[in-house]
Amino acid sequence: MKKLINGVDDVVVEQLEGMALAHPELNVNISPHYITRGDAPVAGKVAIVSGGGSGHEPMHGGFVGMGMLTGACPGEVFTSPTPDQMVECGKAVDSGAGVLFLVKNYTGDVLSFETAADMLHMEGINVQNILIDDDVAVKDSLYTAGRRGVGATVIVEKIVGAAAEAGYDLDQCADLARKVSQNGRSMGMALTSCVTPSKGSPIFDLSDDEIEIGVGIHGEPGMRRIKMRSADEITAMLANEILDDGPYTRTVREFDRDSGEWVEKELTDEPLQSGDEVIAFVNSLGGTPLSELYAVYRKLAQICEERGVKIVRNLIGPYITSLEMQGCSITLVKVDEEILKFWDAPVNTPALRWGA
Amino acid sequence: MKKLINGVDDVVVEQLEGMALAHPELNVNISPHYITRGDAPVAGKVAIVSGGGSGHEPMHGGFVGMGMLTGACPGEVFTSPTPDQMVECGKAVDSGAGVLFLVKNYTGDVLSFETAADMLHMEGINVQNILIDDDVAVKDSLYTAGRRGVGATVIVEKIVGAAAEAGYDLDQCADLARKVSQNGRSMGMALTSCVTPSKGSPIFDLSDDEIEIGVGIHGEPGMRRIKMRSADEITAMLANEILDDGPYTRTVREFDRDSGEWVEKELTDEPLQSGDEVIAFVNSLGGTPLSELYAVYRKLAQICEERGVKIVRNLIGPYITSLEMQGCSITLVKVDEEILKFWDAPVNTPALRWGA
Repeated sequence: MKKLINGVDDVVVEQLEGMALAHPELNVNISPHYITRGDAPVAGKVAIVSGGGSGHEPMHGGFVGMGMLTGACPGEVFTSPTPDQMVECGKAVDSGAGVLFLVKNYTGDVLSFETAADMLHMEGINVQNILIDDDVAVKDSLYTAGRRGVGATVIVEKIVGAAAEAGYDLDQCADLARKVSQNGRSMGMALTSCVTPSKGSPIFDLSDDEIEIGVGIHGEPGMRRIKMRSADEITAMLANEILDDGPYTRTVREFDRDSGEWVEKELTDEPLQSGDEVIAFVNSLGGTPLSELYAVYRKLAQICEERGVKIVRNLIGPYITSLEMQGCSITLVKVDEEILKFWDAPVNTPALRWGA
Repeated sequence: MKKLINGVDDVVVEQLEGMALAHPELNVNISPHYITRGDAPVAGKVAIVSGGGSGHEPMHGGFVGMGMLTGACPGEVFTSPTPDQMVECGKAVDSGAGVLFLVKNYTGDVLSFETAADMLHMEGINVQNILIDDDVAVKDSLYTAGRRGVGATVIVEKIVGAAAEAGYDLDQCADLARKVSQNGRSMGMALTSCVTPSKGSPIFDLSDDEIEIGVGIHGEPGMRRIKMRSADEITAMLANEILDDGPYTRTVREFDRDSGEWVEKELTDEPLQSGDEVIAFVNSLGGTPLSELYAVYRKLAQICEERGVKIVRNLIGPYITSLEMQGCSITLVKVDEEILKFWDAPVNTPALRWGA
């Protein structure tokens, strides 16, 4: 294994120490691991918190700052963070306006964020959990019941962070997060595997002429393994799965403040259709150069135009990665006036910054 | 070879077509290849133009926009652009205030930009060429006489772009570019090679336990090939070469408007010393994850502190890459009040954006 690391056990701590030195505008807490805005709690504003395994840089710590996340809880590499991190982070960021947990759909993340919410409720802090489950590649997979949470997470964090900045209350933030999550669909593919520090070798094997369509961000198996194709063919496979995806119904658990109980809600995502306006997000899984993402975007734009889906904003780059894995993912998020307004709002984080 | 490409010969064209679709605020010219700000020529402002081989994304096209480059000329992958690109780009961006060419020190780039300047002079356009040669690893190398131009280029482009935006004339922009270039020192290292589309296989070989210290951005051989070390040891090797580097004297060619001739100037870069303030830039060569760059930054900050060199700004991420090569480079640029003011000024490009 060749990586720019010291001890295998110190990878996340040393990354956090580096972030603390590079970004004095953030508070980086080492034990337990969490990162918050330096000015948190922000008076009168809902705190937006996410978290998940490390190795998906710049997610989530790179998205902490004005107009996006108030706090982030990084787990070890490809490992869910623990409830104590989320509880400490939630206490550090709550201004009294409550905390919204944005939870990518992995079983460990979902359970830990629910436990943390219960613990924060006992301390009198209002918390709501919103699930992000946008990966159309597979239903039920390694680590997940239902669809996995992937690229739409970046878009949800940006939009809901801006809404919190604008003064949305906890219920309004939760409603907006749910809407953006339901409007998002993603699919990824891998050209190569990646090496986690703890394993020290590739986490799965792909031969020199094979690719994995529908791969998860931890290298979880996808829809199918096929022979290498052209960028246009691969882009069409991903885009068509997203554009042809039908209604998707599943049950999520959210907290009901009136009853003080978790309740199950059945949600159905509506398919994308001609006339829709979208944010198109072409993501590198880490090792794929930006030039190749532009080749993917070129074909994606052609396909969307043919299908009558209008790309009104785009994001192209490595924003939810799998260490150094080569490959890409495509995310389309249907927008409306409210979503677009908050996408365009100023943001000032290490990884995403404009207007500030 | 597994890459998200279509035909090998279409790589750069399709990347440019994707950029054109994603960034309608830019003008992307396909034949010859060049990218300009959509609002160029910008009345009364000096045009800042750079260029070089493709594959070093987001350089240079990703740095075109308000407050940075007015235009960029991408060559084929790892291949110098040609004078006709530079001439057409120069004509497209000149407002009458002249054109500054920022030239990374590779023999092909230097000759082509000089030829292009001569051709533009014949058309009555004022042009000056400033050389960037910051790589302390080697003197004379494959493709280069003298030190190679690497990471300092990003910093020069940002700072001089802001100065042009603020109304600096051509001579003032050239003087500032020369100063920032002389204040910059860099060194890189590779964990892995990369694959160019035209070659289809790794451009050099490194065994599973070897790394190349002092590698160039085209995989040119470095100072030495050694066994794998820890992030801290590798960071110390790069940082100490930069911090211990003595005065560096070489001759550059610049255009003398009074005589209408190219003249040779002897320039000496002064060593960094205790008490200096710097911008610290930790760059991924493409395949190295952001988390590892933060581990490098952590050690770099410790070393700079021990040496009395104060990091006042930092940039961490993939900004001058070698396709999917794993590895990193460190650049330190000594700053003064003028440089810092222009570093902090607003910028709005695909790859670097703040305050706008």
